[in-house]
Amino acid sequence: MEKSRIAALVDGIFAVAMTLLVLDLKLPEGLKMSSDAEVWRQLLELTGRFSTYTLSFIVLGTFWIGHHSLFHFVRKVNRGLLWLNLLFLLFITLLPFSTNLLSAHTHLQIPIVVYGINLLLISLSSLLQLSYLAHHPELSHDQLTPSWIANIRRRISIPAVIVVASIATSFYNPNFAMTAYWLLLVYHFLPGRHHRPPEVDQ
Amino acid sequence: MEKSRIAALVDGIFAVAMTLLVLDLKLPEGLKMSSDAEVWRQLLELTGRFSTYTLSFIVLGTFWIGHHSLFHFVRKVNRGLLWLNLLFLLFITLLPFSTNLLSAHTHLQIPIVVYGINLLLISLSSLLQLSYLAHHPELSHDQLTPSWIANIRRRISIPAVIVVASIATSFYNPNFAMTAYWLLLVYHFLPGRHHRPPEVDQ
Amino acid sequence: MEKSRIAALVDGIFAVAMTLLVLDLKLPEGLKMSSDAEVWRQLLELTGRFSTYTLSFIVLGTFWIGHHSLFHFVRKVNRGLLWLNLLFLLFITLLPFSTNLLSAHTHLQIPIVVYGINLLLISLSSLLQLSYLAHHPELSHDQLTPSWIANIRRRISIPAVIVVASIATSFYNPNFAMTAYWLLLVYHFLPGRHHRPPEVDQ
Amino acid sequence: MEKSRIAALVDGIFAVAMTLLVLDLKLPEGLKMSSDAEVWRQLLELTGRFSTYTLSFIVLGTFWIGHHSLFHFVRKVNRGLLWLNLLFLLFITLLPFSTNLLSAHTHLQIPIVVYGINLLLISLSSLLQLSYLAHHPELSHDQLTPSWIANIRRRISIPAVIVVASIATSFYNPNFAMTAYWLLLVYHFLPGRHHRPPEVDQ
Repeated sequence: MEKSRIAALVDGIFAVAMTLLVLDLKLPEGLKMSSDAEVWRQLLELTGRFSTYTLSFIVLGTFWIGHHSLFHFVRKVNRGLLWLNLLFLLFITLLPFSTNLLSAHTHLQIPIVVYGINLLLISLSSLLQLSYLAHHPELSHDQLTPSWIANIRRRISIPAVIVVASIATSFYNPNFAMTAYWLLLVYHFLPGRHHRPPEVDQ
Repeated sequence: MEKSRIAALVDGIFAVAMTLLVLDLKLPEGLKMSSDAEVWRQLLELTGRFSTYTLSFIVLGTFWIGHHSLFHFVRKVNRGLLWLNLLFLLFITLLPFSTNLLSAHTHLQIPIVVYGINLLLISLSSLLQLSYLAHHPELSHDQLTPSWIANIRRRISIPAVIVVASIATSFYNPNFAMTAYWLLLVYHFLPGRHHRPPEVDQ
Repeated sequence: MEKSRIAALVDGIFAVAMTLLVLDLKLPEGLKMSSDAEVWRQLLELTGRFSTYTLSFIVLGTFWIGHHSLFHFVRKVNRGLLWLNLLFLLFITLLPFSTNLLSAHTHLQIPIVVYGINLLLISLSSLLQLSYLAHHPELSHDQLTPSWIANIRRRISIPAVIVVASIATSFYNPNFAMTAYWLLLVYHFLPGRHHRPPEVDQ
Repeated sequence: MEKSRIAALVDGIFAVAMTLLVLDLKLPEGLKMSSDAEVWRQLLELTGRFSTYTLSFIVLGTFWIGHHSLFHFVRKVNRGLLWLNLLFLLFITLLPFSTNLLSAHTHLQIPIVVYGINLLLISLSSLLQLSYLAHHPELSHDQLTPSWIANIRRRISIPAVIVVASIATSFYNPNFAMTAYWLLLVYHFLPGRHHRPPEVDQ
């Protein structure tokens, strides 16, 4: 039961965060457009926002699946794991803010760095949960073997490394960083035995 | 368990999207009306918004029931089905945006087309999920026979065809397209053996 | 399972609607107050909003408990009951709008009438669900005896009658109608054998 | 089942409230910044809001864990406990408002007092639930012994006492009160046998 209520809170927060992103797409308040040409122009201006919207939605989806994979191995939850979970959720709820900042200023560097740091913090808090589980074997099922832990750690770490790299390159060219964020998602869809979280594939 | 957490995310996103629609109905911010006549005038101006609000609410309800019907046959979920689900949810979270655009500009054509495209994308991602299930029999219960698949496919396809037709006619007359969207919903309430999703009726 | 997912959607929509009410309490956007006296004055201006906020929160709580009581007797759900549920939820999601309208204009009559009509529509859609269950005994548990149905019907009808009466009196004095809404809630807390929904008390 | 639906409503409201807090972090609407320096300046101005955001998020997390611990002992729910729960949720949904007020005016005293009163009301409604359970042993599991009740009561009371003290000191120095709120959270992380809610640790 304990575990199921934490899952309920996590699923609820992800559901709200994923839907709140759409508030970013609003047209300027009070704006009533009188011609299709005007609507078209406004929609074109929103293209950048659509793109970051989609990016953040997929990012949230990816982390939700990741949390899901990890919690599959959790047998019981103690206070420490609970708070690491809340830390993870804190950074998740910040993503609509970073997205909002980024979507309005894709041509600037600081929004890209802020967005990247947010991704990093989510990744790091995921790694913390994983390490905590690895050091408290009494909390997890027997299936969580060292090789699985290494697998999941690699799965979470590689994106984190890419984010750090893309933040670094943003000092030279912000556009490259945006591209890197998109490439990151392609990475998640790549097949490969060592990538697949066991509970999903069999 | 796997399946139940996806259902939790889906139900959460639908619940938030259905409730967020109401933000569309807000009176102009900071407006304090001093007479009942003024309130009445403002409410009359919101009539169009009430109408699209109701339309979108019922549309979301219809797709929620559809997802429900489909997931009834799902026995386990793999990575592919998970991502097709997230694609479906991405288009669901976009509906409050399309609704907002449409409700403020029912007299223009582009908002109607945008709304229709959103409905189409939701329908298509539903069809993708169905095809995926049909090609991965190991994921579904035995009850998902080819005849049921054909039934559900027809059930999802007919509205999609109507939406395409109404987008086409909107080039002649936007009002007709709006009417078509409403007729679409009537279609869903029509009885008929082949329409009823099995898990709901028995 | 069927029934549990409907409950999940209902609980989600109530949770979002109950929390969205707080958006009504926002101070004027962009307002930065420089003294405690100013903050105090702004807070005093929000008193009316706090009052309608609390009213609507309790109203939503009451209807949530009512839905809960009714669904206790539901054994399986068919398409008809599903859509009656969605109709009920449509009127539930409208309550943040009516509350917003009322909280800014408690001195006018139309907002009070609109609020009352919203309450009526929620009550009526509850009654529709009850009647549907009464006419489809195959959907409910055996415990849903005619005497229980009469009990629940009375429980839902009396508030509806009071709301109609208070709308009527609002034509003479809007303040009386507001008082009536509050008295309505006191009614719900009155003890009494015939009021208690069975699944809650034993 | 009864108990699980209340848990679903509670989890849903916490999830929405925790995510709604982020709306506080929005940059001024319509603001398009043209240089990184400008973005940086705006972000620095948000520092205070980030801090109260984090504070409120952790506060909500703490109360969620507290509710969780208490409900672990609940075997069945009656009307009285249900309404005490809704009272608790009413004060929870108010926290985004108090946070919004505080985050924009950390230098003033009234926002700090309002925030403190909100925390107090949440604590008191938690204590009410506990007392109710203590006086209705038929609702709880046998494990809820008098010593556990005393433990939980102490756990909830000490923060309440600190809040009262910090409200009092805010009349001398508002900054001290803010510090006290933060110290409060440190308290929750302190280990100690008598602090640990039983269902979490074993």
